[in-house]
Amino acid sequence: MSAIDSLIEALQVLPGVGPKSAQRMALHLLLRQRQGGVALGAALQAAMRDVRQCAVCRNLTEHEVCGICRDERRDDSLLCVVESPADVLAIEQAGGFRGRYFVLNGRLSPLEGIGPEELGMDQLEARIEDLKPDEVILATNPTVEGEATAHYVTQLIGGRVQRISRIAHGVPLGGEIEYTDGGTLAHALQGRRSIGHDLG
Amino acid sequence: MSAIDSLIEALQVLPGVGPKSAQRMALHLLLRQRQGGVALGAALQAAMRDVRQCAVCRNLTEHEVCGICRDERRDDSLLCVVESPADVLAIEQAGGFRGRYFVLNGRLSPLEGIGPEELGMDQLEARIEDLKPDEVILATNPTVEGEATAHYVTQLIGGRVQRISRIAHGVPLGGEIEYTDGGTLAHALQGRRSIGHDLG
Repeated sequence: MSAIDSLIEALQVLPGVGPKSAQRMALHLLLRQRQGGVALGAALQAAMRDVRQCAVCRNLTEHEVCGICRDERRDDSLLCVVESPADVLAIEQAGGFRGRYFVLNGRLSPLEGIGPEELGMDQLEARIEDLKPDEVILATNPTVEGEATAHYVTQLIGGRVQRISRIAHGVPLGGEIEYTDGGTLAHALQGRRSIGHDLG
Repeated sequence: MSAIDSLIEALQVLPGVGPKSAQRMALHLLLRQRQGGVALGAALQAAMRDVRQCAVCRNLTEHEVCGICRDERRDDSLLCVVESPADVLAIEQAGGFRGRYFVLNGRLSPLEGIGPEELGMDQLEARIEDLKPDEVILATNPTVEGEATAHYVTQLIGGRVQRISRIAHGVPLGGEIEYTDGGTLAHALQGRRSIGHDLG
């Protein structure tokens, strides 16, 4: 196989990239972005070789312990449990949260054979033992599996943490009530908060 | 910068890939496709290092002369002139054409400073001198620049080739006349061909 065909085939491991867009990508790099292609090749080699799970929080990192776990300015009283490293990135990019994380790298799914061991529940218990946070925030996804996982974690650590909370579900900012699905609206109404003073 | 951030940044050289999809790609490779990621890195390094222009037809290849130019079973009597290596791939994948190619790697565009030298017109003349094809097929795109380029090539080589042709423009297979634009329809009508016997 020629070097170009090999590249077109290799590009198809990327999510959402089929033969046609792989071909477009390969030609784009070869004709207009040689430097970028070389840099991408090097970045891939380095990341695939070095990146692993943080020994403390199970997030992705090229170190033994990740940057967030090593950062002494983070708030030890808050521990946020998420399903995936992508959730950590999203919450960090949103800003505002300065606590610690624990990454399950999955959600409970008996059908797929994903149980408590695969999600590192032992490690989560040890982490809570060690960190002694005031509050554990369960930020799993609002799906059936995500809710089941949140429920399981609650059962597991209840009694050992002062407060366990679940992130709010409701109408997203910029969303329109008219086009919001019923389940979300029900959550938004149930989770309503008073503004200003309540009389009486 | 961490290895993951470097990878996310490097992925954005790919066409149509912004920060969000670069992040999704990076995490997909790291969490589910390590082997594929390693292979992609190696394929990129090899292709960026080895692939260059064919000395004969200006197509992309990792050899001095490309596979099509080296293939002795190809038909020397037909030379197809295209704008880019992507066009060669498309025509090869369509099947049916067994002649030779010449790749301009661009189209005449005075505004972008692309003139006859950039398109290898000297090389095209030399190629025609050498190959002595019966017919040169101009398969540049049906755009203003593509038509201007076809016109320029016609002026340049006219008189030295028995036949110069232009690929047909018309309603694409599977297309609907109702939804075909006016320019294409005009071309389709002008380029009509008789079927069966004309009477008289």
